[in-house]
Amino acid sequence: MIIKSGEILSKIESPADLKKLNGDQLKEVCKELRQYIIDIISQNPGHLGASLGVVELTVALHYVMNTPDDKLIWDVGHQAYGHKILTGRRDAFRNNRKYKGISGFPKMAESEYDAFGVGHSSTSISAALGMAIASKLQGNTERQHVAVIGDGSMTGGMALEALNNAGVSDSNVLIILNDNGISIDKSSTALKNYLTSITTSKTYNRLKDYAWKILGKRGEEVSESQRLISQIENAIKGSILEKSNFFESLNIRYFGPVDGHNINKLVKVLKDLKTIRGPKLLHIITTKGKGLKPAEINQTKYHAPGLFNPKTGELIKKDLGILPPKYQDVFGETIIELARLNDKIVGITPAMPSGCSLNKMMEVMPERTFDVGIAEQHAVTFAAGLASSGMTPFCNIYSSFMQRAYDQVIHDIAIQKLPVVLCMDRGGIVGEDGATHHGVFDMSMFRSIPNLILSAPMNEVELRNLMYTAQLENNSPFCIRYPRGRGVTKDWEKPFNILPIGKGEKLSEGKEIALVTIGHPGNFAQEAIWMLKEKNIFPSHYNMRFLKPIDESLLHDACKSHKTIITIEDGTVIGGLGSSVIEFVNKFKYEVNVMPLGVPDRFIEQGSVDELMQECNFDTNSIVETIESLSQTNLQIPQKKAI
Amino acid sequence: MIIKSGEILSKIESPADLKKLNGDQLKEVCKELRQYIIDIISQNPGHLGASLGVVELTVALHYVMNTPDDKLIWDVGHQAYGHKILTGRRDAFRNNRKYKGISGFPKMAESEYDAFGVGHSSTSISAALGMAIASKLQGNTERQHVAVIGDGSMTGGMALEALNNAGVSDSNVLIILNDNGISIDKSSTALKNYLTSITTSKTYNRLKDYAWKILGKRGEEVSESQRLISQIENAIKGSILEKSNFFESLNIRYFGPVDGHNINKLVKVLKDLKTIRGPKLLHIITTKGKGLKPAEINQTKYHAPGLFNPKTGELIKKDLGILPPKYQDVFGETIIELARLNDKIVGITPAMPSGCSLNKMMEVMPERTFDVGIAEQHAVTFAAGLASSGMTPFCNIYSSFMQRAYDQVIHDIAIQKLPVVLCMDRGGIVGEDGATHHGVFDMSMFRSIPNLILSAPMNEVELRNLMYTAQLENNSPFCIRYPRGRGVTKDWEKPFNILPIGKGEKLSEGKEIALVTIGHPGNFAQEAIWMLKEKNIFPSHYNMRFLKPIDESLLHDACKSHKTIITIEDGTVIGGLGSSVIEFVNKFKYEVNVMPLGVPDRFIEQGSVDELMQECNFDTNSIVETIESLSQTNLQIPQKKAI
Repeated sequence: MIIKSGEILSKIESPADLKKLNGDQLKEVCKELRQYIIDIISQNPGHLGASLGVVELTVALHYVMNTPDDKLIWDVGHQAYGHKILTGRRDAFRNNRKYKGISGFPKMAESEYDAFGVGHSSTSISAALGMAIASKLQGNTERQHVAVIGDGSMTGGMALEALNNAGVSDSNVLIILNDNGISIDKSSTALKNYLTSITTSKTYNRLKDYAWKILGKRGEEVSESQRLISQIENAIKGSILEKSNFFESLNIRYFGPVDGHNINKLVKVLKDLKTIRGPKLLHIITTKGKGLKPAEINQTKYHAPGLFNPKTGELIKKDLGILPPKYQDVFGETIIELARLNDKIVGITPAMPSGCSLNKMMEVMPERTFDVGIAEQHAVTFAAGLASSGMTPFCNIYSSFMQRAYDQVIHDIAIQKLPVVLCMDRGGIVGEDGATHHGVFDMSMFRSIPNLILSAPMNEVELRNLMYTAQLENNSPFCIRYPRGRGVTKDWEKPFNILPIGKGEKLSEGKEIALVTIGHPGNFAQEAIWMLKEKNIFPSHYNMRFLKPIDESLLHDACKSHKTIITIEDGTVIGGLGSSVIEFVNKFKYEVNVMPLGVPDRFIEQGSVDELMQECNFDTNSIVETIESLSQTNLQIPQKKAI
Repeated sequence: MIIKSGEILSKIESPADLKKLNGDQLKEVCKELRQYIIDIISQNPGHLGASLGVVELTVALHYVMNTPDDKLIWDVGHQAYGHKILTGRRDAFRNNRKYKGISGFPKMAESEYDAFGVGHSSTSISAALGMAIASKLQGNTERQHVAVIGDGSMTGGMALEALNNAGVSDSNVLIILNDNGISIDKSSTALKNYLTSITTSKTYNRLKDYAWKILGKRGEEVSESQRLISQIENAIKGSILEKSNFFESLNIRYFGPVDGHNINKLVKVLKDLKTIRGPKLLHIITTKGKGLKPAEINQTKYHAPGLFNPKTGELIKKDLGILPPKYQDVFGETIIELARLNDKIVGITPAMPSGCSLNKMMEVMPERTFDVGIAEQHAVTFAAGLASSGMTPFCNIYSSFMQRAYDQVIHDIAIQKLPVVLCMDRGGIVGEDGATHHGVFDMSMFRSIPNLILSAPMNEVELRNLMYTAQLENNSPFCIRYPRGRGVTKDWEKPFNILPIGKGEKLSEGKEIALVTIGHPGNFAQEAIWMLKEKNIFPSHYNMRFLKPIDESLLHDACKSHKTIITIEDGTVIGGLGSSVIEFVNKFKYEVNVMPLGVPDRFIEQGSVDELMQECNFDTNSIVETIESLSQTNLQIPQKKAI
């Protein structure tokens, strides 16, 4: 059944069509837009709650602003479904997040309405400020530059850096603080508590309302009365409100809070704000999941709920039988077991407790589990501080978000050799979230850092045992990297075993071709070997388990008894396992040729994990094909001779 | 002449000796400490102004706190000379920053008083919070955890992330905001302006003084009157001061401002604060360079002034004749020339205008030059925003600080292929600043990122021409990486030439051994070739100029006509040029062996650049020796055969 959009929405091909509507029709289009998002996402899973929360804001922005000439930047961007639907992608939205479909995030290459590509949090103010300065230098004083940022993203360091810079810039930036009181999980940070206190402070709001009333009366003729408004504002600020606000203290003019679900109020406010120059912030209050009751109530579950009934919101669980667990749940269960054995262990997450399953520990050991907000840099150095005082922190950060803490890992953990356990979830291809979220650089970026132990488990039992080993190792930082999704072992809750650091294992004894793998793709190698048996091809298989220190004795074995080594990793082929093995071969002057399989040197878009691994040629079938074609060419022989 | 410390200071072997002194003696020891720092640094250059500014704070902290059990973390750490001198390193301080001497920064491995190693800015609050949480979990409620952080460092995103987290933690953290109104350069950010406004707001100070008077009266018996103080504070906050302060809005209790040069006042305040639980901030006002008049007046010049007369402060310039320019000055002059030709060009620096010589452009084109504060992440995404709107930003960030913006380079620049020119100054070994500051990971960390152009000039003319080429290239991000210090060419101001992207050059035609270099070390290769002539050894030399895309035709040439390739780079040997060439050899199945010279897989401490390059075996002499010993072993022959 093809989902249809409502009557008005079905005629909106661009914001120009939106601008023809009257106030009541705007209300109606909000209703239709919300329904269309619910209908589509119920069948084709994606992020739900965030987009439902900003329906009115989205409509109001495209109604008031002159997009795409005015610049509109959605922080993180998973709330931009409405934006996409209103800007020529209503039908394409059916292929949201699908392979070769449209991205689940704004993307410059996809539409001129997507002023800036997003995915990671807290980038929007910096980008908007850059655009605003560009407009100013280009002599364009009319263009609007709007950053829509959630209260969660506002805690990210770079957003605060940008606020601090915006406050001294004479630039036309409007920051819309979309305050829904929640990131993905309900985490507590001081800024959030502060925002809550603003919205409930009567004195404050009374004064603000007074300022607003005066502002409101000016209506369209603001330019001439700009001076007067400034005077009034200054008078208020000068008395009681002097530096009375977090944002005002950074010289960002603060407006709000405003009900973010009142479309006509939003339109009026945005029109007013267009006429006020300089950096300013509008604080709106929204409800995540607005319009779908269960989503409003259980906001974490409905952040990205999977399939559900669009009428009732009831989640649809397919009976998949008993499956192997998700790696993240193995982490979540195991850290509790370990923390019970070792009272030095604490857990840290930057605002992803349910995403990495640290929420389980948070429930049973709240005093030993820390959600520090969207703050990867702080999370890592906070962990370093704990480790320097004798604790054993497990800091869990998605691989692609760990990029944010690259310096802190070097500067605060590796140089000081502090025993922090860095768990990188979502390592490798993550699927539908696409280019910004694939965790494909981690092994390469960390391999060149001295003192780090780098490991990746091939299955659930290895993950458990690496975690067990890591907390016993007290002299070095220890990275454990594992993928999104499920492992391969149903009965994974085995007693703990030490996995010696820097030791891998030979899983299959074969000849001529050696498969050298790290992490989960070792399972693809095993499947490939099984499939190749009937073709009388018998590769060996080495599961390295550690990228650093690498198991040199295993590699000597592989080099001495094979003609070709195929390395397989779910990360970039530049600088990771493949490079490591090639360097080994060069160092010990073996005559073996290495063929590295992994993620090629380009950004990989969205799609299912299977589709993308196939595109990258390291899924099971690709491995089989590669080996078959190699076998036919009589394996590797040096093609070019040196003099 | 050996510099002696004053009478009292010469008897202080640890803070225990300090604690025996009375108020007048404390004043005297401050005087002696200041003089000792001036005397030593005048002869053995290092950071000056910052340490002079915190003499009284340093003495007060070690007097009041129970170090090393109480934890003291110095943000950045170049202000910690007094701390080192008071904690058993008075004599060792004569070898400050020298090879095998003591580090110019606090370092855990050096002293138990150095609670946390530092170097990069804005880490101290995160670390202190980690330690405070550790103490709490360990049941130690008495331990103090103090982070001393400058107003410049406070603008770094991770410091703000940490504040935001500290505000909800029930932890015993004291943040001392050392407000001297300057980083290295005088840059303007909103937070700085705000701090200035606090210190000058009479109403605010009057109220704070009132609160302080009450606090003061409590003296030692605070524990019993804790409740009363809270009530008074709450009363004030509840009326006019309600959320009236940037820090208070983050739930950090704010105290101050206090004169940071009044030792007895500081002692009293710190004693009071010890008794107040929870996260709190003390704002002190200091003068950078305090006690040496010229340093107080010209704070940027005396940040790290080189040799000077300890009595007058007069800088001592050795007559070095006419030298080649510093790379940074070639950048600083060239960007102005280019900006005059191309009005899309803008310059961006995160708080390092004089360090990277962008101050020159700032003087002549202030509207096109942006100092965004200590905010590398924001700097990069701000640049991306500018580029997305048609500008050509040159964003100049020291190589080791670029680690802070690794994610932003991937997420905001590379994925979107935005034409930002990323200039990485201080690439390679930087010398006396040591492990935290060597820019040795840049080439490795960026080589695995798709869409980036990576280049490193061998000399001044190449730097100019790479900058020229970069601003013409409008479809890709373009990295130019160059070292600290001087180049090799006196007459460098030549007309601009395009350097074709991905093309290097063969500088010397030789045989058997090929030297393949990138960047400045190409000069070492040239010197080595010259020295080897008389020994009848004639290596070839290829200056690659671009690491990515790499010049494959040049590498084919090198592989076809040589037995051994020696790669030389002033960065880690893992993942950079060496790895790149080894991968090339493997890909095309050449039988040539590659020997990578560069920075080994360990952190390199402080020393002169020459000493450290020698330690790493890639200075000219080491190259000569390597080649000689290779020649004696009849060059490379595969040692181990595959089956």
